[in-house]
Amino acid sequence: MSAKPVICIIGAGAVGGYYGARLAQHGHDVHFLLRSDFDAVRRNGWKVKSCDGDFTLAPGESHVYDDARKMPKADLVLVTLKTTANDQFEPLIRPLVKEDTAILTLQNGLGSEERLATLFGKEHILGGMAFTCINRIGAGEIDHMAEGWVRIGEFGGGPSPRASRVAELFSASKIDCKVLDNLRRGRWEKLSWNIPFNGLGAVMDLTTDRLIGTEEGVALLLSIMREVADAARALGAAIPEDLPRRHIDKTRPMGAYQTSMQIDRREGRAMEVEAILGEPLRQGMGAGILMPRLAALYEMAKAVNAAMA
Amino acid sequence: MSAKPVICIIGAGAVGGYYGARLAQHGHDVHFLLRSDFDAVRRNGWKVKSCDGDFTLAPGESHVYDDARKMPKADLVLVTLKTTANDQFEPLIRPLVKEDTAILTLQNGLGSEERLATLFGKEHILGGMAFTCINRIGAGEIDHMAEGWVRIGEFGGGPSPRASRVAELFSASKIDCKVLDNLRRGRWEKLSWNIPFNGLGAVMDLTTDRLIGTEEGVALLLSIMREVADAARALGAAIPEDLPRRHIDKTRPMGAYQTSMQIDRREGRAMEVEAILGEPLRQGMGAGILMPRLAALYEMAKAVNAAMA
Repeated sequence: MSAKPVICIIGAGAVGGYYGARLAQHGHDVHFLLRSDFDAVRRNGWKVKSCDGDFTLAPGESHVYDDARKMPKADLVLVTLKTTANDQFEPLIRPLVKEDTAILTLQNGLGSEERLATLFGKEHILGGMAFTCINRIGAGEIDHMAEGWVRIGEFGGGPSPRASRVAELFSASKIDCKVLDNLRRGRWEKLSWNIPFNGLGAVMDLTTDRLIGTEEGVALLLSIMREVADAARALGAAIPEDLPRRHIDKTRPMGAYQTSMQIDRREGRAMEVEAILGEPLRQGMGAGILMPRLAALYEMAKAVNAAMA
Repeated sequence: MSAKPVICIIGAGAVGGYYGARLAQHGHDVHFLLRSDFDAVRRNGWKVKSCDGDFTLAPGESHVYDDARKMPKADLVLVTLKTTANDQFEPLIRPLVKEDTAILTLQNGLGSEERLATLFGKEHILGGMAFTCINRIGAGEIDHMAEGWVRIGEFGGGPSPRASRVAELFSASKIDCKVLDNLRRGRWEKLSWNIPFNGLGAVMDLTTDRLIGTEEGVALLLSIMREVADAARALGAAIPEDLPRRHIDKTRPMGAYQTSMQIDRREGRAMEVEAILGEPLRQGMGAGILMPRLAALYEMAKAVNAAMA
């Protein structure tokens, strides 16, 4: 990666918009691919409300595009598309890729790294997770509500100088970012929260406080987390024994939190059913683990997703 | 049963109120046990809007009570309590029972006959199902919206003179009523509609048109109906092969129908989780049938029920 790398953000919604704007604020050469917000951001730049300090980016301080074919070749591609748009990887990312491009997906769930690796070559791919709370509140307007952190890793496994450089780039731009020893385990740790809370929250249309507010709800959450933990172990990505209980405790202070999938349900938008439920189920079953609750939840989420679309 | 039998209605909500009022309208000696509507019905009688003809009952034309201990011994007890009140069978029904009392439960789901038989003796018990659409629209005010029918049978199995007499009593009072050869099969036939539509409708908060409106929804409904059919067969109550498909077709003209369990969810009232989901699951599993979708649905319904209470 060069001293002033070309950074392209594919999918500049809340997460992509926020991280891209932070990087641009700190002097990096950031190029955003936008769709619905293209005109507004080109005219007005970015406006960011953040618990780490509000800021704006004037129109000239970053580059915006409505077509990936107009963008420069990238040193780093940050993929923050909703996973329901993953069938657009080829047209949206191919134009940016040169021999040493690093492609980092911060998308939810499972399956995005594999799909990117198939298209562009495993050696290009890094994955990561954003543990944070960022909403898009208008065209080019972002609200970063809670401190958070990013954890990244090589899809091929193990630490790498490249992953460290990306983490430094982020960390120097007010984005807490560290490299994981084991990306796969990190993904399953996050899934063990996301699968029950996103899945049940969307299927049952209940906020997190309703789910953890009763004995029956906690029993159900823990049962699903155990299925996920069994799958993770069978796939060589064992998560800590006490993580399910810690997930419950950690969720209490979040109050009446709506997961992204519940919000998608309520707003009639496509839910990330395959990335958060379908792909973990397929991987777990492929490793010989029966996941009856997740299987039922997946079927029900597909039915809700279709019914509300 | 004597020429003018004493009929006691326990649980005079929509169904009990309507059938009791119809019997009283036709000159029968009907005694209602009421709770919240006691004062209103004592003062004003019953007011029934019905697709089979509206009618009213003046205060003197039926007997109302707020305490089962004040009621006469019954020839026929009609049990139309919500199954969530089944732990009240002993205090509410014991005072009415004499040697030859027939106790007919028209309650939803499974388990009520068994419970009544344990308390009062198997020889007293008949069961049945009301296929109709009746709502309580006010204190003592009932709206009978769709033609319907009642099917009854001996808990002990087979036809009986007593069951025939009850069916005649109903039929002569504008209530279409026939005797089933096999009550158990009748219950499972009805369950194969009630389990998926009530269960999913309440857990996912979707009306029937949303459930049957998509391929994913129909696939899920049919999968659950197949689990129910497998359980019914293992329990010696095999339902017709084509019933699941007929259930789907029959549900289409119902439009945006809210099942009772979905209405209970929306109004924060106890859902009939055990009668409609829990007891069929236990009986099916007891017969060696795995019912993974019903098992998950049951756990989720318990969580929704607890969360919304």
